[in-house]
Amino acid sequence: MARPKVVIIGAGFGGLAAAKALKRAPVDIEIVDRRNYHLFQPLLYQVATADLSPADIAWPIRSIFSRQKNVAVTLAEVQGVDLEAQQVLSAAGPIDYDHLIVATGAQHAYFGNDHWEEHAPGLKRLVDATEIRRRILMAFERAELAQDPEAQARELTFVVVGAGPTGVEMAGAIAELAHFTLARDFRRIRSRDARVILVEAGDRVLSPFPEDLSAKARASLEKLGVEVWTGVTVEDISTEGVQTSDGFVPSATVIWGAGVAVKHLEAWLGVEIDRAGRAMVGPDLTVPGHPDVFVIGDAAKMPWADGKDVPGIAPAAKQAGAYVADVIAAQVAGRARPGPFRYRHVGNLATIGRHAAVIDFGRVKLSGFVAWWLWGVAHIYFLIGVRQPLIVAVSWFWSYVTYSKGARLITGRPVQSSKQHPPQT
Amino acid sequence: MARPKVVIIGAGFGGLAAAKALKRAPVDIEIVDRRNYHLFQPLLYQVATADLSPADIAWPIRSIFSRQKNVAVTLAEVQGVDLEAQQVLSAAGPIDYDHLIVATGAQHAYFGNDHWEEHAPGLKRLVDATEIRRRILMAFERAELAQDPEAQARELTFVVVGAGPTGVEMAGAIAELAHFTLARDFRRIRSRDARVILVEAGDRVLSPFPEDLSAKARASLEKLGVEVWTGVTVEDISTEGVQTSDGFVPSATVIWGAGVAVKHLEAWLGVEIDRAGRAMVGPDLTVPGHPDVFVIGDAAKMPWADGKDVPGIAPAAKQAGAYVADVIAAQVAGRARPGPFRYRHVGNLATIGRHAAVIDFGRVKLSGFVAWWLWGVAHIYFLIGVRQPLIVAVSWFWSYVTYSKGARLITGRPVQSSKQHPPQT
Repeated sequence: MARPKVVIIGAGFGGLAAAKALKRAPVDIEIVDRRNYHLFQPLLYQVATADLSPADIAWPIRSIFSRQKNVAVTLAEVQGVDLEAQQVLSAAGPIDYDHLIVATGAQHAYFGNDHWEEHAPGLKRLVDATEIRRRILMAFERAELAQDPEAQARELTFVVVGAGPTGVEMAGAIAELAHFTLARDFRRIRSRDARVILVEAGDRVLSPFPEDLSAKARASLEKLGVEVWTGVTVEDISTEGVQTSDGFVPSATVIWGAGVAVKHLEAWLGVEIDRAGRAMVGPDLTVPGHPDVFVIGDAAKMPWADGKDVPGIAPAAKQAGAYVADVIAAQVAGRARPGPFRYRHVGNLATIGRHAAVIDFGRVKLSGFVAWWLWGVAHIYFLIGVRQPLIVAVSWFWSYVTYSKGARLITGRPVQSSKQHPPQT
Repeated sequence: MARPKVVIIGAGFGGLAAAKALKRAPVDIEIVDRRNYHLFQPLLYQVATADLSPADIAWPIRSIFSRQKNVAVTLAEVQGVDLEAQQVLSAAGPIDYDHLIVATGAQHAYFGNDHWEEHAPGLKRLVDATEIRRRILMAFERAELAQDPEAQARELTFVVVGAGPTGVEMAGAIAELAHFTLARDFRRIRSRDARVILVEAGDRVLSPFPEDLSAKARASLEKLGVEVWTGVTVEDISTEGVQTSDGFVPSATVIWGAGVAVKHLEAWLGVEIDRAGRAMVGPDLTVPGHPDVFVIGDAAKMPWADGKDVPGIAPAAKQAGAYVADVIAAQVAGRARPGPFRYRHVGNLATIGRHAAVIDFGRVKLSGFVAWWLWGVAHIYFLIGVRQPLIVAVSWFWSYVTYSKGARLITGRPVQSSKQHPPQT
């Protein structure tokens, strides 16, 4: 008799954790992803700001599982799920499953303002990071060539929308790029004159953190030269800049960090979804009525405690992946399925440039330089689970001590002059 | 009085060498390039075969010159030269010069068969390398999904056209990728079954080398599993494969290493050009009738000895750049211009996979593993002139000892299934 088939859609933190936890289970696993790599998203902003190269934070899925023989990888776009026939429908044809784990993650979302995307890319995929890197570096290049002081000022104004961890990290890193890394590179402009504006509709940065850490994060950002505009909403984004509730900001480079949403799950699974498109799963992370179909990680609204949801962070996705693997292994072995998923919250981390971070471990709260080092060690530690930690560490350390950025390449687009203000699609 | 202005078009080996050699001269230098980085072309094939990342072999021009204050960098496409007005015409406006150094290099060329380019990309630019990497890796992915053995065999057939150093290096590296690096990654295909065919119209590989080294290079390639077809011409290249004088080879991935040409020089400079578009320069590398306009490196047909031309390799471009800087410095200082350019040939190098190379130092000829190490040391040594040698060395060594390739990312294109054979534009 054929072994039970586990299909995992998505090779993010959740999908990988599930596949690894099923290493010794008597099942055949097929991971379906439209990319050939796993992406270490927490460091994605460092690619966007030219601290790291794409290959430093992405690993081919096949090489992660080259020694785990019960895993096959299919590089294909998923088009749907046939729950009756127990098949995943993909560009590579239908794929049968006995157990299905949907771990597709979230994309950035503009909530009814999709036309903002071309002017204000988000930061979820590797192509987003290299595109943002290209835009930031090209803005400095165009400023260097601009004759008109107004055009120059517009090129040197960077607006980050949304002060969650991604927005805070991006704003801090752009400020450092302008004030340190590029400081000696230009002859006609002073890169230090660049303005970095962080716009947040709420009343403080890093709202999931306690208020005192928010205040410390804000102080660290301001020390780096970032203008923090809280209580300000974005009303429109165009080629020319950003219309806020506080006035118009001429800007050539806008980055979106204000929201994410999940796609396709209602259509694929017939499952109830919340406003952000996340699947409403049961306590065992299954789709109601389908005990063999699981949704985990950012794609699911996983209930936690006090009416809160499990946060959309890597440790949560990993725990969910390992839990679902346990459920499947128990069922395959004929044992009783374990009880409901219980999320163990370790803490929240965010970094501000290369000298400060804020960490909330619940009872323990840290900020400043010590927190930054802890953040760095934690991330290098997590990377060690995958590949080439030595090179990332060396590359990062080198970049840190020299303030030089080898990854500062503008690739993929022709040069555009500052005079034309072309639509930045 | 303003200092004399030296404009350098192109930041390759020749352009950089000229700018560096003018560090202490009382001149203002402006480097104009359409890319923001210098590319270490001799290792470009390692990006194409996923051994190295783009950022490992490319450095921002600005950061190379951040401490050399008499150098400004303009990121712009050059559109022409006005020799009368002494201006370079660029997308960023006209740029005045007193001395002009044209160091634009060569592009790959198809000599009347430009429609082959979409099916058989060459390897001169960083985008070429990432595109070739994408095609090679996607071919294995499509083979893994293919149901039809014929389609599978076509996906697993790689044809390299032209057995110069680039073609030999590519063929060897693809064979290693298939036979070692990917050996454990697939479940339905055996990547070792991949065919790598090197097609050469001449009667031996590496024709600039002595015959015994050609024979050794061929033996090394065959040991790696490369099929070497000498005396075979390519008649047509299409989506389906390659029509050769020896029959049709179904292949999804064809790489062009058969020729280069120089663009624009006749139109820009009114200079006589040879069949490959190279400028016919005088013994001091100037354009006849224009003693302040120099053409160097791959863009020039520089006479050497015995009626031969100076070869199109990095050391030759560097020597020409340094020579031209001497001429300009002498003239600016009111000294007599030095005598004609004399090229000092150090040797020819080519590498075959990670275990063999051939080196021709004239009297000394080396091949095999010792030559490979010498080749590696020479390249790391040359890299040290630029940036991040430590990281390239670590990355390379890591890749070498583990046969793992962190740079194995498929970026920039949507997934395509093997069934459609889409035109690979």
